[in-house]
Amino acid sequence: MTLRIGVIGTGAIGRDHMRRINQTLSGAKVTAVSDVNIESVRTARADLAPEAEVVGSGEELAASAGVDAVVVTSWGATHEQYVLAAIAAGKPVFCEKPLSTTAAGAGRIVEAETAFGRRLVQVGFMRRYDAGYRMLKAVVENEIGRPLMVHAAHRNPSVPEQYITPMAIQDTLIHEIDVLRWLLDDDYVSAQVISPRRTRHAHARVEDPQIVLLETKSGIRIDVEIFVNCRYGYDIQCQVVGEEGLASLPDPMAVVMRKDAKLQSAIMTDWKDRFIDSYDLELQDFIKAAARGTASGPTAWDGYVAAVSSDACVEAQSQPGSIVPISLPARPALYN
Amino acid sequence: MTLRIGVIGTGAIGRDHMRRINQTLSGAKVTAVSDVNIESVRTARADLAPEAEVVGSGEELAASAGVDAVVVTSWGATHEQYVLAAIAAGKPVFCEKPLSTTAAGAGRIVEAETAFGRRLVQVGFMRRYDAGYRMLKAVVENEIGRPLMVHAAHRNPSVPEQYITPMAIQDTLIHEIDVLRWLLDDDYVSAQVISPRRTRHAHARVEDPQIVLLETKSGIRIDVEIFVNCRYGYDIQCQVVGEEGLASLPDPMAVVMRKDAKLQSAIMTDWKDRFIDSYDLELQDFIKAAARGTASGPTAWDGYVAAVSSDACVEAQSQPGSIVPISLPARPALYN
Amino acid sequence: MTLRIGVIGTGAIGRDHMRRINQTLSGAKVTAVSDVNIESVRTARADLAPEAEVVGSGEELAASAGVDAVVVTSWGATHEQYVLAAIAAGKPVFCEKPLSTTAAGAGRIVEAETAFGRRLVQVGFMRRYDAGYRMLKAVVENEIGRPLMVHAAHRNPSVPEQYITPMAIQDTLIHEIDVLRWLLDDDYVSAQVISPRRTRHAHARVEDPQIVLLETKSGIRIDVEIFVNCRYGYDIQCQVVGEEGLASLPDPMAVVMRKDAKLQSAIMTDWKDRFIDSYDLELQDFIKAAARGTASGPTAWDGYVAAVSSDACVEAQSQPGSIVPISLPARPALYN
Amino acid sequence: MTLRIGVIGTGAIGRDHMRRINQTLSGAKVTAVSDVNIESVRTARADLAPEAEVVGSGEELAASAGVDAVVVTSWGATHEQYVLAAIAAGKPVFCEKPLSTTAAGAGRIVEAETAFGRRLVQVGFMRRYDAGYRMLKAVVENEIGRPLMVHAAHRNPSVPEQYITPMAIQDTLIHEIDVLRWLLDDDYVSAQVISPRRTRHAHARVEDPQIVLLETKSGIRIDVEIFVNCRYGYDIQCQVVGEEGLASLPDPMAVVMRKDAKLQSAIMTDWKDRFIDSYDLELQDFIKAAARGTASGPTAWDGYVAAVSSDACVEAQSQPGSIVPISLPARPALYN
Repeated sequence: MTLRIGVIGTGAIGRDHMRRINQTLSGAKVTAVSDVNIESVRTARADLAPEAEVVGSGEELAASAGVDAVVVTSWGATHEQYVLAAIAAGKPVFCEKPLSTTAAGAGRIVEAETAFGRRLVQVGFMRRYDAGYRMLKAVVENEIGRPLMVHAAHRNPSVPEQYITPMAIQDTLIHEIDVLRWLLDDDYVSAQVISPRRTRHAHARVEDPQIVLLETKSGIRIDVEIFVNCRYGYDIQCQVVGEEGLASLPDPMAVVMRKDAKLQSAIMTDWKDRFIDSYDLELQDFIKAAARGTASGPTAWDGYVAAVSSDACVEAQSQPGSIVPISLPARPALYN
Repeated sequence: MTLRIGVIGTGAIGRDHMRRINQTLSGAKVTAVSDVNIESVRTARADLAPEAEVVGSGEELAASAGVDAVVVTSWGATHEQYVLAAIAAGKPVFCEKPLSTTAAGAGRIVEAETAFGRRLVQVGFMRRYDAGYRMLKAVVENEIGRPLMVHAAHRNPSVPEQYITPMAIQDTLIHEIDVLRWLLDDDYVSAQVISPRRTRHAHARVEDPQIVLLETKSGIRIDVEIFVNCRYGYDIQCQVVGEEGLASLPDPMAVVMRKDAKLQSAIMTDWKDRFIDSYDLELQDFIKAAARGTASGPTAWDGYVAAVSSDACVEAQSQPGSIVPISLPARPALYN
Repeated sequence: MTLRIGVIGTGAIGRDHMRRINQTLSGAKVTAVSDVNIESVRTARADLAPEAEVVGSGEELAASAGVDAVVVTSWGATHEQYVLAAIAAGKPVFCEKPLSTTAAGAGRIVEAETAFGRRLVQVGFMRRYDAGYRMLKAVVENEIGRPLMVHAAHRNPSVPEQYITPMAIQDTLIHEIDVLRWLLDDDYVSAQVISPRRTRHAHARVEDPQIVLLETKSGIRIDVEIFVNCRYGYDIQCQVVGEEGLASLPDPMAVVMRKDAKLQSAIMTDWKDRFIDSYDLELQDFIKAAARGTASGPTAWDGYVAAVSSDACVEAQSQPGSIVPISLPARPALYN
Repeated sequence: MTLRIGVIGTGAIGRDHMRRINQTLSGAKVTAVSDVNIESVRTARADLAPEAEVVGSGEELAASAGVDAVVVTSWGATHEQYVLAAIAAGKPVFCEKPLSTTAAGAGRIVEAETAFGRRLVQVGFMRRYDAGYRMLKAVVENEIGRPLMVHAAHRNPSVPEQYITPMAIQDTLIHEIDVLRWLLDDDYVSAQVISPRRTRHAHARVEDPQIVLLETKSGIRIDVEIFVNCRYGYDIQCQVVGEEGLASLPDPMAVVMRKDAKLQSAIMTDWKDRFIDSYDLELQDFIKAAARGTASGPTAWDGYVAAVSSDACVEAQSQPGSIVPISLPARPALYN
């Protein structure tokens, strides 16, 4: 009854999920691996899944009789083809963000899954599995009345030279785009981007900080500060203002010290630590659903909506002061 | 050496300042009072300053030989005339907000004071005297690098029927307009107003909540949430994001309790309690400066700039999505 | 390579560990179960481990060829005999608290394990696996200098009629007795118990609250408030005062709300929620060590020391104002 | 109607109260000053009260026709004689701590005031005027049920060489001795002192830290940590555990920063800043009561009880492990 998982892409995140499946989680093992880099796949297999078969291509892996479910952790540009291959094989597939590098590509996946007629795809939006966001969602739904506004912030200590302005949306805001839709159970109708005074710590090719203003169908207004060279830490803030009260995402647990004339507690600096428990939970959830031949958690539709919304925000980045509409087709019944 | 103060306007706030001068502060006494309502002025005198002379009009009071300095706490529409009368008499004058109900009126006061050639006017923007804002200003100037953004909120539990949409600017945001200029040592160049989903607790003639976006000369971006039917309390929030870190206005001191399955501390509900110490400090500061024949604290120019900025925000309220410029004449040398 | 675990005792905690092993953790499965109550063992097997064998007695289970490691979750009075049976079979054994109901019994287990010559026993002191205590230990060891004092509290909302005064030590303080030894890497030399004014919420047979004062070999002074009818929540507090600063155990993560004139966050009321993650971690740690034929985490010696210290505290309860010495034999080399 | 105050003792604290009376508070002025050091009194007069008369002795000052009320801020050993002189003159007197350096001396003041038949004496226990303690008292009386325990701490960054072990009681704990009686409306019946491991930062003649255990008439148990070389700051903590919940003294207001991977806020390091507002309030309260010919706030009886309790704690310091009884005569009716 152990779920046999094939992993496509054995880079850092692929290896991480292999370790998770074989050493931490329950109910699955890695039985096949594939990567365009043959060195990488051999090392990963040797280190983490010595019993797994090395398969020549992602498509072959998806089709393999020795594989019940697929994990796609390859280079982003190849996600679409491997997810489509898994759907063609009728197998549950967990795909890391982004589902596709284009909204059109994500749309093709939605079409394929809809045509297949049963959910097979889970997208790796791990924040939905974070204990803090789950606590916040419970409070938003039960204690503070209808949500009216959200004030959020996504801050990194610094980013490398290759991180350029649109990545503030595509790599950074993308998490808020998904998790706020889920938190509010709502969709976006427009986006505006504001550019405050630049920090001296930003390199030349990135506008930093930025503020993204989003409006939802029900009129909720969201402001998200994106500040990827904030210096002081990796810090995710989210406050929901409702008709009856406010609720804030809890900060990660930390020891409070009194030392050096300061009441102080540590703020994380490495994003990898912030949602570390969520990776375990999302993949365990995938394993459980895949064992029943289906998928759970964030859907292909969520991946598609994130792509469309992200595109609008990137457009808004290049049009200071203007409000860019976000429009979506009707949601297929499969996702209701 | 006791400063002889004449008070024009003996309503609630006038009485409050009379009590302050005669019973709490050092170095002054109320020697003259005036009000268009003769009942009011007699009662106030009897209760709080039995030795004071009742004077027939504010202009007479300002000119009286028994008055060294003037406090204007009359109806807003009369502020301009009484402040001008005090300037004409060459006497220091403390004027409650607003300095004038129009930017033009405030401009006339600036002209009169400039012509007189010495500072005489202090405007009652008391937040500049609040211990929390003073702590915040010290941190902003010394610890977090150049300011890039400000996230602020001004929340009231509820407002009465006569509170209509423009008052969210003129009566509520006006405090942030002044205190943020002072905090950042900067001026505004534009305003935009956003209307989120309405709370069901707002009556028909007020848009609530609203978000005001301000840009400063140096490019700092400010968002202020105004939410005057927030239900839960009177709550003033202000967070400054700098190049090296963030700093937040402290919440008022409160006992932390553990009770009824909650870690809890009280939030104020009456705005009058929030800055109560500041009223003492601003008026003591006025007394000290007035004893030297001049004024301290917020200037007539600050009152004028607040009026101009407020007008732009009111204009922005009626033009959804548009960015309204804020332009100011050169600052007279008297105010540098 | 899957570790085959036999579970002795299929009550609530036994079932919980069975579920954990078969559905959540990695590397083990339940292959045998035993309980004096035949109904209980059949139901537990059917619900949670249908492939497991039902074995007639705990001793048989420990000796069974189909069992690699043993989990003892039977009634406390039987722990000693089953742990000794596992040691006799040379098999790793995880034993829930208490290791034995008497210090003498725990001493016999230490002797048996010492004679065997390799660690086989892990005691279920789960707090050592709690993320908060681990963070605190790291700070205590690295940031606040030598510890001088500890202020701690262990509070329950209420206790049932059968909870009597000595249980405040044996069932409640026992957790602090173990975790503070581990946190400070020290042993106790004396205990004193203080009885404050009784709460009106305590039933007749329990003194509540109580304060236990402990002294360690290095002179650290510990005060632990035990308050088992505190009404407001299940609340565990621990503050270590060091030569260079103070460090406090973090409160569990909670959403901060602003509502009803209160800044508030929820406090847990059910003790089972407080250390829920620790149960997974301690048992996963056991599985990893047991797969190598040994044990990790809290030792039989820790269980013995806890029993001796607990006995001294119970004695101190009955001697108001007196200081009861705590003396231990030399620590066997196996536990260094 | 201005109260004419004579100040005996023009050292640092005397000068501070002179400044307060003449420049900050309302309703009084300094009309006479006296000090054994003629340089000191001349300088203080010149700096702070140029219109005051220099009087040859404290006794003369108390008797002077130009003085309505007396402030005693001389060297502690002379407090008793000057307070008695003021009582003899039938004048209200504010006396800095201690009321007398011996319980017997404080007792003589109680006798004199009782014989006079009206309250004249206010002792300078300023914490009763602190906004935080006042908030705490309101919560203790109204929200958490009957108090059962108090956990308190009094920490200084460091102390000079002349600070020796008994001063931990006489100069440091004395504040908790008074304020906790007031907070709980109770008296002490016994004291015990515990000596934890010494900090390496303590010089040779002071035991540091110490823990004082107090029991009250109603059975409330109090533990106060005194740690006068704690390094990190001047920090006053007080937590009251009641039958229905807990309440903690608020920390002083401080800006919360996010910087350098830390959520942080400043802790004071100078004790003079901690209760700075209380000095104004206690003296204003004295002025108001003295204008009516009597005294308010902490009484001579409070000063006497503090002295008796302090003596018992000093005795307990020298008797490790023993519980020293604290017994008081009946409270004179004047103080009910």
